[in-house]
Amino acid sequence: MAIKKQNVFIGVDLGATNIKFGLVLPDGNILLERKSETEIHRGVNYVFDKVADFTHTLADYAGENYELKGFGIGVPGLIDTRKKELVEASNFPDWRDIKIGYELEKRLNLEIYIDNDANLAALGEYAFGAGRGVTEMLMVTLGSGVGSGLILNGSIYHGSKGAAGEFGHIIIQQNGPLCSCGSRGCVEAFVGKNAILRRMKEILQQDTESILKNHNPTNMTPEDIYFAAEKGDKPAIRLFKEVGESLGVGLGNIANLLNLERIVIGGGIANAGDLILNHARKVLSENALKTNRESIEIVKAELGERAGIVGAAKLAMMSLN
Amino acid sequence: MAIKKQNVFIGVDLGATNIKFGLVLPDGNILLERKSETEIHRGVNYVFDKVADFTHTLADYAGENYELKGFGIGVPGLIDTRKKELVEASNFPDWRDIKIGYELEKRLNLEIYIDNDANLAALGEYAFGAGRGVTEMLMVTLGSGVGSGLILNGSIYHGSKGAAGEFGHIIIQQNGPLCSCGSRGCVEAFVGKNAILRRMKEILQQDTESILKNHNPTNMTPEDIYFAAEKGDKPAIRLFKEVGESLGVGLGNIANLLNLERIVIGGGIANAGDLILNHARKVLSENALKTNRESIEIVKAELGERAGIVGAAKLAMMSLN
Repeated sequence: MAIKKQNVFIGVDLGATNIKFGLVLPDGNILLERKSETEIHRGVNYVFDKVADFTHTLADYAGENYELKGFGIGVPGLIDTRKKELVEASNFPDWRDIKIGYELEKRLNLEIYIDNDANLAALGEYAFGAGRGVTEMLMVTLGSGVGSGLILNGSIYHGSKGAAGEFGHIIIQQNGPLCSCGSRGCVEAFVGKNAILRRMKEILQQDTESILKNHNPTNMTPEDIYFAAEKGDKPAIRLFKEVGESLGVGLGNIANLLNLERIVIGGGIANAGDLILNHARKVLSENALKTNRESIEIVKAELGERAGIVGAAKLAMMSLN
Repeated sequence: MAIKKQNVFIGVDLGATNIKFGLVLPDGNILLERKSETEIHRGVNYVFDKVADFTHTLADYAGENYELKGFGIGVPGLIDTRKKELVEASNFPDWRDIKIGYELEKRLNLEIYIDNDANLAALGEYAFGAGRGVTEMLMVTLGSGVGSGLILNGSIYHGSKGAAGEFGHIIIQQNGPLCSCGSRGCVEAFVGKNAILRRMKEILQQDTESILKNHNPTNMTPEDIYFAAEKGDKPAIRLFKEVGESLGVGLGNIANLLNLERIVIGGGIANAGDLILNHARKVLSENALKTNRESIEIVKAELGERAGIVGAAKLAMMSLN
């Protein structure tokens, strides 16, 4: 008697530095994962060959015990999900109009599904992490940049050309500090890594009490500030309060516009956790209208770096329905 | 031989001051319209009786030549569209948890459809006005307050509890001017009627050249400022420039977050047209990211006060599909 094999899916998170691969079960658990440097300088074909090689390895591993049912991949940049093409990518300036679907399907002989990496991290948390049980959700990834993905009515919201979800570039302070995008006063200009480090230096110039005072400012990281804050360092605590408050203004705007149920915060800086998020919650509850603030909660992401691969696998799972 | 009668729909726009009724054809043309004072002080039952009376009159008019296929109504406030109930209404403080669906269906003996009035104005423009041909749209109504309704993926976007679309209360200036909602620096605190009049008075105190200088400030209206600007009055022109720029910051935020195709601007203050909108367009194009700004256009509403009734009728039309 033939035993029905359990389904399995491959999820890939193609980043500027690393490519992450996972063999993902329908419940979001990862059977096997692999990671490799992207080596983007070696060119598009090299990267696609590498993705194909790892995919074959994972498919072989799945072997007799599982049935490989789908393949999803997240890519940083503007994606035409219907054509399965990368339109442009801010991190890979040379990659424009790349037919990712065609290139990978040719190599893999299976249908692939593709979306923006921030969208798939949001989908991963929505399906298997901190977004479970809601249908209206924003995931924000706090890092060098501020990435985000929107889940509306239980699906990724792309907007008209796939460019929705730029939470980091909504302006909360007209004529505020300069942002990497060229505008002033964007959320990213207050809560992105560079903004945090710049502001810490400013605070240290005024406040000589900080334990970070003698830290070399050129190699300071948000983690250093986090450890200082954990030890009770007032300037570091004050910085995270400011970051949380700015984040709260931005998230309050989203709450008022979209009446979401949950905001999931991930990324390295989110490790500061409630040192930032409690201030964001307070400001959101002060600024959002009654129904909008009562509907929403701000929580930490649960899947960490794996959100992208399980989200990519989920994208493939959804294609089966 | 029986001739198939043309379908017709009743759309009702229940406002704090007036109730507007329309007998609307499937193409959005209005066969007949009526308007009556709401007389909200007479109580809920009086208002529902009036809606029923006018509806019967319109239905009688439709008479032999048309077939009445549906009834839709827009109400200002938070609506539970599934239960067809008004949860609360900022303009009618006494109206809470009103079973509008039950009350009207009892009186009319037909199924009714209900939504928030700003959402239905957006749906009206989307289906029959300035929003035709797109699927991702925001309608903003500039008046005493700043109302808005979102069309995403071709449908009204409600959010988790029906409170989505509060564009007027997204903050563009932390610690900016006080808004009616209690927060500071909301879009409404820059572009709402009261904000415009307050700012004009400030400008007039500094600038003695304006033709509005001798206008009684207590009864000045946005129209007075508009007429002055039309005559080339520099302080009035400067005011609309400021209003347009603040509007542009807010709309740029929406463009970055939602990658919309069109923003439709209606309401009394929108009569100032390009005196405001050209500045909004310029600021949006300076602040929104490339794909987001290239996807979007800002246009004037086309349906004026009728957007609400044709939107309400459209809601009923959609129930037939």
